[in-house]
Amino acid sequence: MPNITFLPANVSIEIDPDENLLRAAMKAGVHINSSCGGAGVCNKCRIFVEQGEVKGETLPEGGWKACQTFPVSDVVVRVPVESEVDRKVLRRPMAQKAASWIKVHTKSTSWELHPVVQKYLVHLPKPSLQDSASDLERLKREIGQKRPQAISPEVDSHVLSTLPESVRKRDWDATVSLMEGTERDIHRLIRVEPGDSTSQHLAVAVDVGTTTVSAQLIDLKTGEAIEEVSDYNPQISYGEDVISRMEFAKKGDGFKTLQEKIIECLNRLIGELCSKSGRKKEALSLISLAGNTVMMHFLLGLDTRFLRSNPYTPVATQFPPVRAIDLGMDVPEHVYMFLVPCVASYVGADIVAGVVGVGINHHPELTLFIDIGTNGEIVLGNQDWMACAACSAGPAFEGGGMRHGMRATTGAIEVVHIHPVTFEPMILTIGGKKAKGICGSGIISLLAGLFMAGVLDQRGKFYKDLDTERVRPGRDGWEYVVIGAKSTAIAQDIVFTEADIENLIRAKGAMFAGYFTLLESVGMGFEDLERVILAGNFGSYLDLDQAITIGLLPDIPRDRFFFAGNTSLLGARASAISLPVTRELHKVAKMMTHFDLSSNPRFMDHYVSSLFLPHTDQNLFPSVRLE
Amino acid sequence: MPNITFLPANVSIEIDPDENLLRAAMKAGVHINSSCGGAGVCNKCRIFVEQGEVKGETLPEGGWKACQTFPVSDVVVRVPVESEVDRKVLRRPMAQKAASWIKVHTKSTSWELHPVVQKYLVHLPKPSLQDSASDLERLKREIGQKRPQAISPEVDSHVLSTLPESVRKRDWDATVSLMEGTERDIHRLIRVEPGDSTSQHLAVAVDVGTTTVSAQLIDLKTGEAIEEVSDYNPQISYGEDVISRMEFAKKGDGFKTLQEKIIECLNRLIGELCSKSGRKKEALSLISLAGNTVMMHFLLGLDTRFLRSNPYTPVATQFPPVRAIDLGMDVPEHVYMFLVPCVASYVGADIVAGVVGVGINHHPELTLFIDIGTNGEIVLGNQDWMACAACSAGPAFEGGGMRHGMRATTGAIEVVHIHPVTFEPMILTIGGKKAKGICGSGIISLLAGLFMAGVLDQRGKFYKDLDTERVRPGRDGWEYVVIGAKSTAIAQDIVFTEADIENLIRAKGAMFAGYFTLLESVGMGFEDLERVILAGNFGSYLDLDQAITIGLLPDIPRDRFFFAGNTSLLGARASAISLPVTRELHKVAKMMTHFDLSSNPRFMDHYVSSLFLPHTDQNLFPSVRLE
Repeated sequence: MPNITFLPANVSIEIDPDENLLRAAMKAGVHINSSCGGAGVCNKCRIFVEQGEVKGETLPEGGWKACQTFPVSDVVVRVPVESEVDRKVLRRPMAQKAASWIKVHTKSTSWELHPVVQKYLVHLPKPSLQDSASDLERLKREIGQKRPQAISPEVDSHVLSTLPESVRKRDWDATVSLMEGTERDIHRLIRVEPGDSTSQHLAVAVDVGTTTVSAQLIDLKTGEAIEEVSDYNPQISYGEDVISRMEFAKKGDGFKTLQEKIIECLNRLIGELCSKSGRKKEALSLISLAGNTVMMHFLLGLDTRFLRSNPYTPVATQFPPVRAIDLGMDVPEHVYMFLVPCVASYVGADIVAGVVGVGINHHPELTLFIDIGTNGEIVLGNQDWMACAACSAGPAFEGGGMRHGMRATTGAIEVVHIHPVTFEPMILTIGGKKAKGICGSGIISLLAGLFMAGVLDQRGKFYKDLDTERVRPGRDGWEYVVIGAKSTAIAQDIVFTEADIENLIRAKGAMFAGYFTLLESVGMGFEDLERVILAGNFGSYLDLDQAITIGLLPDIPRDRFFFAGNTSLLGARASAISLPVTRELHKVAKMMTHFDLSSNPRFMDHYVSSLFLPHTDQNLFPSVRLE
Repeated sequence: MPNITFLPANVSIEIDPDENLLRAAMKAGVHINSSCGGAGVCNKCRIFVEQGEVKGETLPEGGWKACQTFPVSDVVVRVPVESEVDRKVLRRPMAQKAASWIKVHTKSTSWELHPVVQKYLVHLPKPSLQDSASDLERLKREIGQKRPQAISPEVDSHVLSTLPESVRKRDWDATVSLMEGTERDIHRLIRVEPGDSTSQHLAVAVDVGTTTVSAQLIDLKTGEAIEEVSDYNPQISYGEDVISRMEFAKKGDGFKTLQEKIIECLNRLIGELCSKSGRKKEALSLISLAGNTVMMHFLLGLDTRFLRSNPYTPVATQFPPVRAIDLGMDVPEHVYMFLVPCVASYVGADIVAGVVGVGINHHPELTLFIDIGTNGEIVLGNQDWMACAACSAGPAFEGGGMRHGMRATTGAIEVVHIHPVTFEPMILTIGGKKAKGICGSGIISLLAGLFMAGVLDQRGKFYKDLDTERVRPGRDGWEYVVIGAKSTAIAQDIVFTEADIENLIRAKGAMFAGYFTLLESVGMGFEDLERVILAGNFGSYLDLDQAITIGLLPDIPRDRFFFAGNTSLLGARASAISLPVTRELHKVAKMMTHFDLSSNPRFMDHYVSSLFLPHTDQNLFPSVRLE
């Protein structure tokens, strides 16, 4: 890996030869002005190469475009004075997530490999006049030999229709699939196949998110995921968020439409998993699935009317295993879906799956589990107890309700650094394309950057006397021009407004007040937190220090923070490969104490106190130094 | 009831005023010649009224037609000399079943009223922000109050789709239907209705016979049958007997057609039960059903290929409860069908239901349970043990394979008496219509009558030197003319041939050898039998002494014989109203030791010895005096 040294700061970093020098600078904490996000059009990111070899684009006035230039050897680069970084910025490296976030260890090997559905090869003695027991009795006897607890399983009636053929086709060798009870010690015979098919034993684990649906194909012989696919949740056409979808569901057959859409999506994803991996759908033994409470209701075709309004009552939070074909799934008839249980209307199966997926239920450490989205869900606890709550953070962190907010796709501004003297931005977009808008991590990056650079005050208002034209009055009050129209893909200025900032502060305030209220409810404080685990892909893009700077995360030692990716999918996968995990999921869902924050007066107090950057109580954020 | 005295025999009998004097004579054991079966056309049944008043038809030559004449007061009748009965006949009264058969006590009150599905009225506390448990959790809490064992029931997923509406519609009053496990102590929530519907709690019990399907509507609040209907099994169009239907099932979608036909029939019968009783199908809580093993397979759409041929292996003998709509039943979705278990290919659920229905499993007396049909099924045992067997008796007793055999419908000859001197018959038909053929009881009656009158020898061959034109050579060897063509409804002589008799002797021989073999297998003899219970409607028409005379039933004291009607339906009904009975059915099906007679050399020996009237070993039939 080439080593890049930036002068005059004299900061070095090793990077992948595929990475351009603008990204290298961002990682190293070196500010280089850049407006176009790395698209090679603003020509602001000029650097000079002093030693070593590079390839890329030069500028007519001399030097290279950092965003279009790649190292061939170790390189020493000088950043010209117009972009030179000052010491103050260096004190706090930017975009240091690789160092500060610790990826939670989530290898499947930490779960006991014991799927809810197990396959056994049995050999039956041939019937005779002296032993003319029915095919089923004959089979049960052999099952009893292999697995004495299962000698008298419940039998799915569809098994019987192919039973005579299945046991005779391979000379009385057959493979039986037994499903164990998740709550009781009972067994259910769900499938009989001719011959030995024990090696064909797959599961699909699914996370149904409001926006994205992700699915993994899992080999139940090893517990390993062999393929993963994802797609947008097609229900998006009927509403961006759960509230608007529940409104749609109320109208006529709306809820059926939403059910059909998600089922179609699951069928498509399972088809993709099979075709990509070259495995057959017939090898599927089970599906396990998690999602938020609303998604679980839509999936099962349940009425969400009473979930929608006070007191927010779900139809059910624990769901029986359901035959997949009964929901319209295009899978073999023996396949059951195991649905991770929910806790309450806004603390869903995705959270329960996440908590168990990352193993909070197996550790003594006091852990705060956070899922930031439209609704921020919070779980506090350890192996002995858990408390949970949801706070309506609003969609700001997903780019919703922001003038130029967008999802994290190509052209979204994902990282911004603001020069503390010139107030000029250094911008990276996803895919290095011209910017179309700002996604979640970019928004937090912008808010934190503007605040740290002294462009914003603690109330989130712009200082209006700064020596920069980027801060100006606009349609929604004052705003900061992130990129001028000519360098964007949308032919208009991309701006960040005081209204946007107000939304963001409310969102982060709701989250923080949530942590505070939960901790306080159990007589604890932030100092007692031994781990903070951030769920969702958000964590992988979010700069930890920036998130603390704006008061979205508590200011505690950085080595207590972990990010865990899609923990809902992780828990669904754990459930697919492990009956003990499935049982734990139900136990955990039952043990979680749900706090309704909306009716909690302490929450309102904490919320109001949190509507500052980082917080009205500066003592809560000792490491955020405002100079 | 008018008292009728027949002279010169000086025999009296009380009869219903709706009964004609020919039937009265048959009951009293008085022979009156009659050829037309009571249709009033042969004019042979002339009697003279000496005292009392009658109404009816007189004959031109004087006297009354006995078959068309009814008593108005007590009556003394003289039978003219041409029909005078002799003392020999009087020694053994004819058609005395009312005296000799004892109807088994089968009142439902002897079964614990505890249906597999129970209804409970619950009242839920309204949800609030402080208690926002899901509708299902809320319901489970209340269920736990009513029935602590059921606090955590399994939940049918279809329950959830109407749950929010159901609990809210009647101000949080709801009726839950809980189904108990037949094998395990588990509960399943299958239905939630708004308000109090505990009074609407019905079951349908069904016997699916090869020929006839019978169904009862049962009020589960009282255990009483409130309506009963029956119809021919529409599968008859695809084969009269189980063998030909199994042949049909093999071809293409044959088995599906047979399944559809029986389901259509059940739907129709349930519709009739509801419309006749004015009850709603929505009040149905469960269906319980029995039938022979082949019928059970057809009902479930199971492959009968291996049931058809050696070693006669059923797919299953114990069937899981199955959702009725999954079989295409037109009933509410919460309705499960409980299928009585079978023992083996030819000892089906109808037999298990019968054995439990008449309570053999609750009595210490050694009991022989007999079901005579195409396949004669036999169970021997008591509360501690049971052995069972099937013997292919053939369809002779149902009129099958007989020149003029027919089912027991209008116009079938049901009782015959043969005058021991003149060899003239006295005939009654069902409905008093002109004869079309001879049904089962008529066939036995004919065989016994001809044998006792000295028309047949012990091998079942006609004596050819008798002074009667009724015995004559015919197409199939020698035959007896029961009715001449001009008095029948079919414009041809109705005859009873030596070929018919051979079939009958084989059939009764198979049954008798069956009893003998089973008894012998357990080291017992006929003298040990404390009860003989005859299943089926056959028993209500069959003359006990005649059946013993031909060797169809063992010659033991007559007060040990009982007939029990449709015991399969009886057991299905017992199962519908009583979970303990349902559990007993499974226990009994498992405890029965099945003997395969076809491969048993002792059976062959006994069979050959039984091909005589009544038997080669005269000592087995001490009360049958051949003079």
